[in-house]
Amino acid sequence: MQIAILLFDRFTTLDAVGPYETLARIPGAEVVLVGERTGPYRNELGTLGLVADAELSEVSAPDILVVPGGPGQNEQMEDGPLHEWIRAVDAGTTWTTSVCTGSLILAATGLLKGRRATSHWMALDLLATYGAEPTGERVVFDGKYVTAAGISSGIDMGLALVGRVAGDFRAQCVQLGIEYDPQPPYNAGSPRTAPPEVTAALREHSRFFLKD
Amino acid sequence: MQIAILLFDRFTTLDAVGPYETLARIPGAEVVLVGERTGPYRNELGTLGLVADAELSEVSAPDILVVPGGPGQNEQMEDGPLHEWIRAVDAGTTWTTSVCTGSLILAATGLLKGRRATSHWMALDLLATYGAEPTGERVVFDGKYVTAAGISSGIDMGLALVGRVAGDFRAQCVQLGIEYDPQPPYNAGSPRTAPPEVTAALREHSRFFLKD
Repeated sequence: MQIAILLFDRFTTLDAVGPYETLARIPGAEVVLVGERTGPYRNELGTLGLVADAELSEVSAPDILVVPGGPGQNEQMEDGPLHEWIRAVDAGTTWTTSVCTGSLILAATGLLKGRRATSHWMALDLLATYGAEPTGERVVFDGKYVTAAGISSGIDMGLALVGRVAGDFRAQCVQLGIEYDPQPPYNAGSPRTAPPEVTAALREHSRFFLKD
Repeated sequence: MQIAILLFDRFTTLDAVGPYETLARIPGAEVVLVGERTGPYRNELGTLGLVADAELSEVSAPDILVVPGGPGQNEQMEDGPLHEWIRAVDAGTTWTTSVCTGSLILAATGLLKGRRATSHWMALDLLATYGAEPTGERVVFDGKYVTAAGISSGIDMGLALVGRVAGDFRAQCVQLGIEYDPQPPYNAGSPRTAPPEVTAALREHSRFFLKD
């Protein structure tokens, strides 16, 4: 089983690594990080480089596709070679997935038309622009399309997918292996629970979250 | 404020990326991934490369040090240039931290002697070998030494540290920014909660968690 994780400039690291750290532990999984070129891609903060080991043409039939998001998503919205590759490999995938604003890229390729999907809470409404139906859930399954909310949600999506692919027992082994027993020191992970002034600050200016 | 995240061969990716994704969002933070050599380090599964942008000699005075773990920790336990560097930079840090079995490396340098500390649940008892006092907590503060449990716990540690360094408001902004509203699909993230057969499987053979 091949799992392809897409990289592009100014991606958000945990968007890619949450699914990686869970899906890569499926028995027999072969994960490949793939980009329009091989070599390191820098994340949106500019201080981390993650290596694409294959270019698009080398990965033609992944069983699972993972599209991460991040500020660089904005430069991946035009139709072209990347969208053509996504549509081509999607024809053969068992699961086509995204984390964070990666769902906007998937939606822009046309694949989420008429489907329920999610994204980072700040980008959720944009899904409708591309004919998807935004939902506020953290992980959304609609047929073989699986979308996750912002950044850290890829861990939850990954575990859910391990369960679908390899069974509950294996998924629980992975959860225990990565000791995923979350204990956030604050209760601010969603606009539902965050103090209103925190939500307002992020809505007002991304410097509260991105690099100053 | 400089934050140094150490890389070595066969590290576990999320050990490094959990703290990265939180600490890198501290205002004015400059994160540097550092290793004994520059260039990509492969993780323990062999399918992911993360780039060290600096070598040890180029990073002499970080404010925060993060030591990740992973199976490659076993090869970093002998005293030598890496341990000397850790001890040297520790003399100037505000916070010296680890995730997962990174605490065993810190402990082997002597820095955790007599201190409360944690590690991956499967490695916890080993801390005592190096004079540290193992605790079952997810994130342990003892003076300026902060250790986190297995793999995913670095997110919780990172958020707690953002709070100490930049205040609760900023930490809440980071939590909301990374949409850290965890909803694991199983309740198996700790030996306290996992089905006994899951815990037994991991204790019996790491293939239930690592590459087959």
